[in-house]
Amino acid sequence: MPEVPESAPSTEDAIMAATYRALCEHGYAGTTISRIAAEFPKSKSLLYYHYEDKDDLLTDFLAHLLDRLESDLQGKPPQDPPERLDALLEKLAPRDPSDEQVRFFQALLEMRAQTFHEPAYREQFRRTDDLIVAELTETIEEGIEDGTFADVDAERTAAFVLSVLYGALDRSIPLDEPAYVARSRDELDRYVETVLLAAE
Amino acid sequence: MPEVPESAPSTEDAIMAATYRALCEHGYAGTTISRIAAEFPKSKSLLYYHYEDKDDLLTDFLAHLLDRLESDLQGKPPQDPPERLDALLEKLAPRDPSDEQVRFFQALLEMRAQTFHEPAYREQFRRTDDLIVAELTETIEEGIEDGTFADVDAERTAAFVLSVLYGALDRSIPLDEPAYVARSRDELDRYVETVLLAAE
Repeated sequence: MPEVPESAPSTEDAIMAATYRALCEHGYAGTTISRIAAEFPKSKSLLYYHYEDKDDLLTDFLAHLLDRLESDLQGKPPQDPPERLDALLEKLAPRDPSDEQVRFFQALLEMRAQTFHEPAYREQFRRTDDLIVAELTETIEEGIEDGTFADVDAERTAAFVLSVLYGALDRSIPLDEPAYVARSRDELDRYVETVLLAAE
Repeated sequence: MPEVPESAPSTEDAIMAATYRALCEHGYAGTTISRIAAEFPKSKSLLYYHYEDKDDLLTDFLAHLLDRLESDLQGKPPQDPPERLDALLEKLAPRDPSDEQVRFFQALLEMRAQTFHEPAYREQFRRTDDLIVAELTETIEEGIEDGTFADVDAERTAAFVLSVLYGALDRSIPLDEPAYVARSRDELDRYVETVLLAAE
């Protein structure tokens, strides 16, 4: 997900790229409209014209991430189901996250923990989770159809895989142990081998 | 974990019980020293004498939870390894959490997401995670020794199980879908059956 371009053409894209940089640098709690404006290369008044409230901007930012993920998934080259599954896991919880990715995941976890105070965030996270579960489900179903995967309940398995990815991030990022992500991914691979690839 | 007594004898226990109630009611961000004082049945000056800073108090609160978990685990009646494992999972991520537990988990997730700003919290979460992984590892090792469990890498499996529990909570609580916990627990049971109980 953290692939917002450095130099973006439209005003909206430029605002979103500035928001991404501010979140990486200051975290969720430390991000303010003026700190986002400081990262914004165009006229500050343009930004204040679009947004006066941090939470409105961040809700749009989450929607923007969702749109990017959606078009990203649509543009994928055809792969066989196990490769497609692995590419998706690597995209969502990379084995060896960069410092920037770690800071961005930290900001996302902060935002997820804010959903009781900001229900608009919850709606965006729910849509994102639903999209990921749908993509995982489709991948698993394809694998069942072509005989690569065992005949599991695809949607339940997909929901579990997403839950494991959240666990990998939520266990490692707050403890500042990025290496825990790779360990969880190894165990997830074992689960996939034992439960999903049992058909082979 | 959320088993702080309603009426506690010592001043420290009373402060911790008041902190628990304030977190359940106001969440992490909304909890202040004065809101904790409002939940404190004894003299307010007693509380302000012990703590002037919310973060110091919450760091001690996390340490208090860890102590309780530790004495709780020591006082457990002897059980066979699968029962002990299941009891531990139910304790850490209950299948059917009460409203109070949901609010408390939400506050804990908020605090975990604060670790980049409050390194003292991180230390407490790390100690708690280490204690849980040690308890899970011991349970799995016992099961391997008595032949109930397959000969897996106990510590890696334990770390994965904890990660799955975090995932179950982090996927369900922010989306306000407590029922997702039971679904993750079902899949975790399937994992335990397939990977751990394979010895049978």
